Amino acid sequence: MDNEAPRTPIITLTTDFGTTDPYVGIMKGVILGIAPDARIVDLNHGIAAGDIGAAAFSLFRSTPYFPEGTIHVVVVDPGVGSSRRSLAVELDRCVLVAPDNGVVTMAMKHGPVRRIVSLEDRAYWLDAVSRTFHGRDVFAPVAAHLCRGVEIGRLGPEIDDPVAWEISEPQRVEADEWAARVIYVDRFGNCITDISEAMVSGASRVQLLVGGTWVQALSESYAAVPDGSVLALVGSSGFVEISVRNGSAADAMALGVGAPVTCRLSPRNGQPCS
Amino acid sequence: MDNEAPRTPIITLTTDFGTTDPYVGIMKGVILGIAPDARIVDLNHGIAAGDIGAAAFSLFRSTPYFPEGTIHVVVVDPGVGSSRRSLAVELDRCVLVAPDNGVVTMAMKHGPVRRIVSLEDRAYWLDAVSRTFHGRDVFAPVAAHLCRGVEIGRLGPEIDDPVAWEISEPQRVEADEWAARVIYVDRFGNCITDISEAMVSGASRVQLLVGGTWVQALSESYAAVPDGSVLALVGSSGFVEISVRNGSAADAMALGVGAPVTCRLSPRNGQPCS
Amino acid sequence: MDNEAPRTPIITLTTDFGTTDPYVGIMKGVILGIAPDARIVDLNHGIAAGDIGAAAFSLFRSTPYFPEGTIHVVVVDPGVGSSRRSLAVELDRCVLVAPDNGVVTMAMKHGPVRRIVSLEDRAYWLDAVSRTFHGRDVFAPVAAHLCRGVEIGRLGPEIDDPVAWEISEPQRVEADEWAARVIYVDRFGNCITDISEAMVSGASRVQLLVGGTWVQALSESYAAVPDGSVLALVGSSGFVEISVRNGSAADAMALGVGAPVTCRLSPRNGQPCS
Repeated sequence: MDNEAPRTPIITLTTDFGTTDPYVGIMKGVILGIAPDARIVDLNHGIAAGDIGAAAFSLFRSTPYFPEGTIHVVVVDPGVGSSRRSLAVELDRCVLVAPDNGVVTMAMKHGPVRRIVSLEDRAYWLDAVSRTFHGRDVFAPVAAHLCRGVEIGRLGPEIDDPVAWEISEPQRVEADEWAARVIYVDRFGNCITDISEAMVSGASRVQLLVGGTWVQALSESYAAVPDGSVLALVGSSGFVEISVRNGSAADAMALGVGAPVTCRLSPRNGQPCS
Repeated sequence: MDNEAPRTPIITLTTDFGTTDPYVGIMKGVILGIAPDARIVDLNHGIAAGDIGAAAFSLFRSTPYFPEGTIHVVVVDPGVGSSRRSLAVELDRCVLVAPDNGVVTMAMKHGPVRRIVSLEDRAYWLDAVSRTFHGRDVFAPVAAHLCRGVEIGRLGPEIDDPVAWEISEPQRVEADEWAARVIYVDRFGNCITDISEAMVSGASRVQLLVGGTWVQALSESYAAVPDGSVLALVGSSGFVEISVRNGSAADAMALGVGAPVTCRLSPRNGQPCS
Repeated sequence: MDNEAPRTPIITLTTDFGTTDPYVGIMKGVILGIAPDARIVDLNHGIAAGDIGAAAFSLFRSTPYFPEGTIHVVVVDPGVGSSRRSLAVELDRCVLVAPDNGVVTMAMKHGPVRRIVSLEDRAYWLDAVSRTFHGRDVFAPVAAHLCRGVEIGRLGPEIDDPVAWEISEPQRVEADEWAARVIYVDRFGNCITDISEAMVSGASRVQLLVGGTWVQALSESYAAVPDGSVLALVGSSGFVEISVRNGSAADAMALGVGAPVTCRLSPRNGQPCS
């Protein structure tokens, strides 16, 4: 890829707009009107209405898989039309464009963060701005201008106090026991917990109590247990997931976001897990 | 953008095909086989089966946001296989390709309409035409040929009597009172009425009776009322919408398309509203 | 199209990932990181979780409509993480990339099959391969490398024993009667049977018994019967479909995949149907 001309950045879209209205398509029309060469990728439009946590996690696990320079737009925006700010966040490898409601807090962990600006220069918005659809009127045109090479600093003043989303982390309750929880449930009913791969990788044994069921070890794959059995494994997100082979853990154990998971870690070589 | 080569037009797709079958993808395969550079945008595939009114409104509010030259294909086609005609409608800024069932009537209001042709020259269709999937066999190839620069007049003879969809408009029932109705319900449960921004902009006060509830004024944004409260505002579509903040107006008041809305307008400076 | 430079192939995606998680978008990020010019088409992400038969049929009816050289990726993969192989199948007009679970058996019928390789060279995968998301870690990067021109033979050793999916075919139970079944139900509730156009084209009369109802002939189009009536016709898939005009045959007669359909064929000119 050396010696090639710089490529037009990719713009990804994450919204709670669903796919039964023209809202996402209209955003694409606006983008292509400003940046005709933009390559637009739908990242996730199935976020539940206003679910900032799900959008934050969906974005967090996605950005590392996109090429350098990608512009990620998130429109999950229950405060649209209020005085909430809008942001562009420049990281080393990408730019995040979103309302200032914490939806990018997790993705910013991939850092380092170079700059955060408050979107205020209306020259980069549509001429008419509605009270309810800033995805169309603000975020899409801003992303398109970034895609065409507009310097992020021109979009508005720098800020250093973005709204932070409290990121879920397991809490230690005993020497070897943590109170964890489910942070995301996917289409298959896999329940992703806030227990990271790093946390369990140092343990000789991992036991989980979830929905009244003890899972006695992490599995290597879904296929390691019989059909319909509960298992836990380090999922593709880098977090421990609770699953049912060829079934839905969420349905089988009535789990949802926030469901408690007790995690017991046995130390390796007598070393405490930390 | 001056002095650049003309760009390949965008093709947008609006259908009632949903996203759980390969029908939309197959249309894209056909388009790319004929016009490999086409940029295809999904506008809305979540139209309820055969719901011409919803498709008409979805298209109407979308076309103004696409660049000049865009080709909009609509396949909501309960009469497929019958003797209904198929159309290409050339407007100043775009071309509409659809069955002749009124689904483009509203979008034609953005006019001016230059030409309407009946799609009859089979040279621009697939060789084999099925009885049930003209999206694949007629509309996709026609759009692709237009995208490659085929003159619209070559697709078939001009006509001047397209099927018209009756566009909903509030009816005056008293000097200051109109009988309006809900014309579209979106994913969030926002109920879009046929009361236009122009109609309410001249009034000093707007009161709405919907689902047994009086809304005493238009709000500036969702955030202007407490969570769970009913409000009305001029939405991003340019029409008055009934909403519930962080909730669904459709669910809360059991509203659907066609639900009646009484609209009372108080004149400004003693001038009647018209 | 003569004398033009060879085009970047299209990559299509068929999965059971749905559209409410970022999984499909992440695959696109991986593809575009390796093959920035790839044109990616979503073929079908609404396959029911693990439904190999539906995915196989969806792919089978789609591949003929894509340009030569298209790469079709299918990730319906209940055995992910087990010892099941992964395949790339080179046909005359396209390449299929999928787990070795029979999901490409039907599409291979479009043949001829030139070569089947087992994906084993990790140089064409992501560096880290998870236990649960080979769409991201194996299939997306392999497709992207093929798109950039990597020779299929470099992906792994040739094999000749892919897992076969048993393809449904009507069974003769009397001289003029076949036991057929529903093989796919689409969004509209159309029930596609395994009765091919070729099978009925030689008959002077076709009668079908389905859900307790006799359909006495094939119709030419949906519009040939009154609203709400059951009909059968040769659908756009090339198979006989059971439909209800402006309704859902699946709902009206409680039909699903596997539902039995009795097919009685009357010979033409006294010749038996075969």
